[in-house]
Order: sequence, then C-alpha cells, then structure tokens
Amino acid sequence: MKIHTLTIVGVGLIGGSIGLAAGRRGLAQRIVGVGRQQSSLDQALSVGAIDEASLDLSAAVARADVVVFCTPVDRIADQVLAAAPHCQPGTLLTDAGSTKSAIVTALEARLAKHVHFVGSHPLAGSEKRGPEFADADLFQSRLTVVTPTPRTESSVVERTTAFWRALGSRVKVMTPDDHDRALAVTSHLPHVTAAALAAILPPALHELAATGMRDTTRIAAGDPGLWTGILLQNRTAILDAIAKLQERLAEFTRLLAANDRSAIDALLARAKRTRDALGS
Amino acid sequence: MKIHTLTIVGVGLIGGSIGLAAGRRGLAQRIVGVGRQQSSLDQALSVGAIDEASLDLSAAVARADVVVFCTPVDRIADQVLAAAPHCQPGTLLTDAGSTKSAIVTALEARLAKHVHFVGSHPLAGSEKRGPEFADADLFQSRLTVVTPTPRTESSVVERTTAFWRALGSRVKVMTPDDHDRALAVTSHLPHVTAAALAAILPPALHELAATGMRDTTRIAAGDPGLWTGILLQNRTAILDAIAKLQERLAEFTRLLAANDRSAIDALLARAKRTRDALGS
Repeated sequence: MKIHTLTIVGVGLIGGSIGLAAGRRGLAQRIVGVGRQQSSLDQALSVGAIDEASLDLSAAVARADVVVFCTPVDRIADQVLAAAPHCQPGTLLTDAGSTKSAIVTALEARLAKHVHFVGSHPLAGSEKRGPEFADADLFQSRLTVVTPTPRTESSVVERTTAFWRALGSRVKVMTPDDHDRALAVTSHLPHVTAAALAAILPPALHELAATGMRDTTRIAAGDPGLWTGILLQNRTAILDAIAKLQERLAEFTRLLAANDRSAIDALLARAKRTRDALGS
Repeated sequence: MKIHTLTIVGVGLIGGSIGLAAGRRGLAQRIVGVGRQQSSLDQALSVGAIDEASLDLSAAVARADVVVFCTPVDRIADQVLAAAPHCQPGTLLTDAGSTKSAIVTALEARLAKHVHFVGSHPLAGSEKRGPEFADADLFQSRLTVVTPTPRTESSVVERTTAFWRALGSRVKVMTPDDHDRALAVTSHLPHVTAAALAAILPPALHELAATGMRDTTRIAAGDPGLWTGILLQNRTAILDAIAKLQERLAEFTRLLAANDRSAIDALLARAKRTRDALGS
C-alpha cells in the first residue's frame, strides 16, 4: 500500500502513533494532522508524528487519499459527515474509535456516495493522552478490528486491512455489533471495574495500596470524558457485561460465606488459567 | 541492627527476597533457609538468597536470633508454634503473611513465653512465585505493616521495625484487625475482582483482550492455593469490601441505564483522581 496524503484527524496518543508509524514505515508521502488546538498540533509536529498541521478539517481532507479519525467516539460520526463533501472521489475514511455500532449506524445511510467509510478499532493505547506519548511501534503485533457491514465493498475492507497491516498490526474482521459485544467484556468492563475499585478507596488507605491495587486500577486513570462517551455508546452490551461480573462476585460472596475452600480454590484456579493464557 | 543467624522459613519470592536483601545489606552473618522441598532450597542457595538450607525446622531455628515465616498464611501459626520450643530465649519471631488477625489470635495465648512474636506484612510481591524471582530491592521504599497487640512488648515492636527498615522498607504499626480491614479493600478485593473478571472471559475473546484487560486481571495469575488461604482468613472484611464494590457497580448500572452523562463523567473523574494519587 502506498498513500500520497494521509490525513489524521485528532493527533493524540493514537493519532500521533499512526502518524509516527506511517512515517517510519514509508507508508505515506505526506502526513497531515488536523486538530482543534494549535498546541496539540505543535506537539505532534515536534515529535515528528505529522508533516503538516491544520485547524481546518475541510481543507485538510481535500487532498487526502486516506483519512483516519482518531477523535473521541462521540465526535467521530459528525466529523466524518462534515469531512466527506470535501473529499475527492474514492477517498478511504476510517476511524480508531473503541465503539463501532453507533458510529457505523450513524454513517451507513447518510454518507456521500463518492467516499468509502469502514470502521476500525486498533486494540492499542494506554491510560495516557497526547502526542507526547505517541509510539511508532504502538500497533506492532497488536490486533485491529475492522467492521464492515453488508453494504461495505470488499475492496474497501481490503484497503483498510492493508493500511493497518502496513502499520504493523494484525487485522480481524467482525460486524460492528459483534465487536461491541466482545469489547464490552474485554475492554469496557475492565474500565468500569477499575473505576469502581478506585472509587471505593478512601484517601486514608492510599498508602496501603500496593502493586495489586495499582495494576487492577491502572486504566481508571484514563480520560473521563473519552470513557463516558465510550460507555454510553455501548451501554446495552456493557450493562450485560457488568451483570456477568456481578454474578461472579456474588459467587465469591456465597463461597466465602460458606467457607467453601475447594470451590474458592477451583474458581481462582480457573481465573489463573485464563489469565495465564492471556500472556504478560 | 545486627543479627548473627537469620532463619527464613519458606524461601519463595518473599522469603528469598528477604534473604537477598539481608545478605546485600550485611544485616545477618548467617542466613538459613528452611523448606519442605530440597529443590526450592537448592534454588534459593543458587541465587544467593540463603547461606545454608535445612529441611528441619527445629534444628534451623535453634541457633537463630530472628526467624521470619514466609509460608502460606494458613500454615504460619502452626509452624510458629512448632518452632518456638526449639528457639533460644529472646528469639524474635515474625512473619510476612497477607492476613494478620487469624495468625496473631492463634498465637497470642499459646506461644512459649521465652520467645517473642509480632506479626508483619511487607506490602511487596507479585503474581510470581519462587526464589528465582527473588529481588534484593523488593522492599526498598515499600511499606511493611507491623501488628502488635496490647500484650506485645514495645522492645519487640522496635526490633521488628528495625529489621524491616534494615531491608529498605518503611514501617507502619497497626492493630491486626485494622490491618485486615484495610488490606481487604487495598489487596484482597482487587484479587477477587481480577479473578472474577478473568473468570468471565471466554476463550473466544482472548485475542480481543488488550492492555486494559491484562492490567486489570494481572494478579489473577497468583497462586490459587495461597490466595484461597488469604481470602478465607479475612473473609468477614472481604465480604464487606465485595459489597462496597457491588454497590459501585450497581451505581454504574443505574447511571448507564439512565444515560446520565454528567453523573458517569463525575464518577469516572473521581476514580481518576484516586488512581492518579496512587502514582504509577
């Protein structure tokens, strides 16, 4: 895959990392970053994540072959709709949002026909924000989910897959709904859980929190605004996932109340096998 | 503090790290490790965590000035009772167990008068096991809780505090009950939560688990047998802690069902402030 102009809308950790990875791997001849604040754009320029910066979405997408939206999930659909009329025919639009159904549904029937959109979600990132944490290897050996619908042309899926592979990622194709139900369990529920744990820790106990509490709550340091958007866009699936976790916690409660050593040991052993299978 | 013979009962990650730290810092002239399996003792010898190894608890404590029990919490009290009659008068006995009330209560009235026991809990460790993961700096700048009772002589608390400080740790004195109620929230609840999260993750979703799920479930890789013992010894306080977490998860459920953006944002912001305060 060779791109003349890659436009990245939103140059934070993810957008900045896409720019760095595309630059290092020679994927694009020109990388344009779009933002709402000059300070973020300046930072992205200074770390070498983008070649040019623009505060003007319309102008920045006009010459792009590929546009990637790396903004908060609740802004992506509106930005894609705003950008599309200014794009050249055949431009590929995709995103990096952590939810897919709401975004894809909002765009499916409303997007101008001369451009192509398919949703993407690179499973990479951290609780950190901003282009200063951008990493050219962020996508290396990670998985990106690409979420076409029955209306998506297969050539569009192929170009999008080639794009993420060129950045070092593996790619898995799923429907938007399957993505959202899976990520509710593998990503959104851990965030809710980490936040719930952190929220019950009173200041007097901070000094008694060691590695276990720190690891378990690490992602609760993520940006609240970003995560509120994610949780609301996928709330049905997340409500199911929270219910599943509550059932398992209720099982711990029952077994502890009953002093049932062998059943607790079996439940912890099962959890350990799963965690060991995930790797470090 | 200068120790002639330090005996460490249980030479895993914690016991091995105590041996390494004591050796490097010149705290003890002779470090004896006691275990039930020659293979662990050989490993502890090979990493330099102990100078001598013994399968015989009675013989190994007979010449000790200080004995530290680093075995699973449900074995500590019995081992202390078994060791005490073989100790010289004035020997200091302490432990490194993650629970304190059950151990201290089991020993309080039954221990031979010529020895001194006070409970300790160094807040250090990881999901790993065995002397091959021992680290001379494991206690550096970490906190160790020392848990005297009204019967404990102040000189015993002072010697125990000096011991952990000599290994690089800070020391906080708490009652066994206060320790257990605090650690139920800061350590035991995170373990239960990590295990509950891991337990609901089906194999088909493993590939979709990224950094967030990995961090949040990391401690679920801990040894099930060790943790079953900890959870059962502190089950009353842990049941309270699980109930608190369940309330917070129920709050997320209510707010998501009500689509209450500002309240979700406020809850996530509060969790972030707490997590930020814990540091990395």
